[in-house]
Amino acid sequence: MAAARFDILGIGNAIVDVVARADEAFLSKHDMRKGAMALVDAAAAEKIYAAMPPGQESSGGSAANTCAVAAGLGAKVAFLGKVADDQLGGVFRHDITAAGVAFPTPALSGGAPTARCLILVTADGQRTMNTFLGACVAFGESDVDTDLVADSAVTYLEGYLFDPPAAQAAFRRAADAAHKAGRLVSLSLSDAFCVDRHRAAFRELVRNHVDILFANEVEICALYETEFDRAAEAARADVALAALTRSENGSLILRGAETVAVPAASADVIDTTGAGDAYAAGFLAAYTSGRTLAACGRLGSLAAAEVIAHYGARPQSDLRVLLTNLPS
Amino acid sequence: MAAARFDILGIGNAIVDVVARADEAFLSKHDMRKGAMALVDAAAAEKIYAAMPPGQESSGGSAANTCAVAAGLGAKVAFLGKVADDQLGGVFRHDITAAGVAFPTPALSGGAPTARCLILVTADGQRTMNTFLGACVAFGESDVDTDLVADSAVTYLEGYLFDPPAAQAAFRRAADAAHKAGRLVSLSLSDAFCVDRHRAAFRELVRNHVDILFANEVEICALYETEFDRAAEAARADVALAALTRSENGSLILRGAETVAVPAASADVIDTTGAGDAYAAGFLAAYTSGRTLAACGRLGSLAAAEVIAHYGARPQSDLRVLLTNLPS
Repeated sequence: MAAARFDILGIGNAIVDVVARADEAFLSKHDMRKGAMALVDAAAAEKIYAAMPPGQESSGGSAANTCAVAAGLGAKVAFLGKVADDQLGGVFRHDITAAGVAFPTPALSGGAPTARCLILVTADGQRTMNTFLGACVAFGESDVDTDLVADSAVTYLEGYLFDPPAAQAAFRRAADAAHKAGRLVSLSLSDAFCVDRHRAAFRELVRNHVDILFANEVEICALYETEFDRAAEAARADVALAALTRSENGSLILRGAETVAVPAASADVIDTTGAGDAYAAGFLAAYTSGRTLAACGRLGSLAAAEVIAHYGARPQSDLRVLLTNLPS
Repeated sequence: MAAARFDILGIGNAIVDVVARADEAFLSKHDMRKGAMALVDAAAAEKIYAAMPPGQESSGGSAANTCAVAAGLGAKVAFLGKVADDQLGGVFRHDITAAGVAFPTPALSGGAPTARCLILVTADGQRTMNTFLGACVAFGESDVDTDLVADSAVTYLEGYLFDPPAAQAAFRRAADAAHKAGRLVSLSLSDAFCVDRHRAAFRELVRNHVDILFANEVEICALYETEFDRAAEAARADVALAALTRSENGSLILRGAETVAVPAASADVIDTTGAGDAYAAGFLAAYTSGRTLAACGRLGSLAAAEVIAHYGARPQSDLRVLLTNLPS
């Protein structure tokens, strides 16, 4: 098979994050589940924003974060996702392009505005997210360039893509094109409540279409509706490679009979937004450059540690040194 | 005289900052003067933005930053400045309102977009700014509510207001209204190159219309075209009260024959954007609550230390504790 032009092609929601600090009382008052992502409509987003403290805007989106981090680590990366032709769409396009990620998806004209995610960060560093999908709902099958998929070693899909209705079809088109070209498909489960909303579809996909699965403890337990050890074994049976993250307890990597436990990298936690996205980025950047599973997990942990040490899900320091210093 | 409804009324450019890290080579390549603010047109702003690394957006503007910090310290604050009715204008309005600042100026419709300032932060924490004034050029005399001015103990004006042509007239209208009502007028010189562009007008204003002057070392030297000690004495002769900041060497406060030297507060410098704005906020918040000059300078230093310890010019922690713990 020919070498792929891209190591990683991410497909996901194209979102601008609005990050502000809040206390637990704010979460309760607005009926938010701490640590979770909730979908909100335009009116609810307006209402939450009006009540929020002053914020900082930066580009987000789960798979888009993964792409930005992976590019920062030196991987060749492209991203597909839908913004509107508005100011926040311009911010998203600038940031992902400036991060070194190819972003060919045209902007939506005359429809919903660019998606935003209102993120409340509590003193313990936990993030609680409220997403208005906006232009993301216009992302569909026709936005999936199958030649691009065929030219990417791994096509990486975020679980949140199951929320906008048309994106599920795009997801399947991408997975089919990847496998037809002999490439790999990777999926992140994204969020336990997202898994709850789409459990049957997720189970079918994981079993039949996914080669590399990313999930945290709560998500993998939600997928298989059981406790962690059993869920991990179910994942081992369903996919060729699974990387299960457990916050400060590191990650567990399963491939056939092989099991690799990787410790977390130390970090002063300021804001956990994007921790899982960064882990997947480090893992896939190492994996697509032929590293051992232990090295893949280590680079995932190091990338996550960088991102949780500051507000925002995109890296704020030069990541190339992480890959350079990585033991094989 | 009746008690004022507001302690501080800020008037300035309403700007959204786009902050990114850059090295010295980037500044040279784009002909930027390190540490300075340059005015750029829409085309130049586009060109610089396209070349910039991924950024973080947050509300800025010199007087607006001062207002946000002062409100965080517990002062009663209002702000006048012009945004457009676009997404970034919405961000600016949300942030200043959520900071507790009254912001009555209507947004501009159908004109230039909301102003933005492209800020490159080098490894030493210095910020280099490129401002596209956008909707700010539409701010004029009619935007100055003289009743609001009369109801504010101090009207605080940023020197950058001398750049948009119509704002100088607004500036004079505000200063006249303040003095007619027996209130105080305060001015920040903002930037040495801004002083160079408008030196004659600045000198006339400082001498005849300003009660409280803020400037850093380079700015006060630019105003009087002489070295610091002589410039400080010229300021002492021209205004009732001058607060001159000298970065890590603290500040010098001059009032008639009185001279108070205040040490800088310790901080790990990440990004100096907004240091002077925060100093003025702390100073005026203490001054309008009747504190000594030493306490005014101390609160200025503490507020500046909070702001330079992170990216962005608006506070990221609860500032009320600074005022609570301030020695008289």
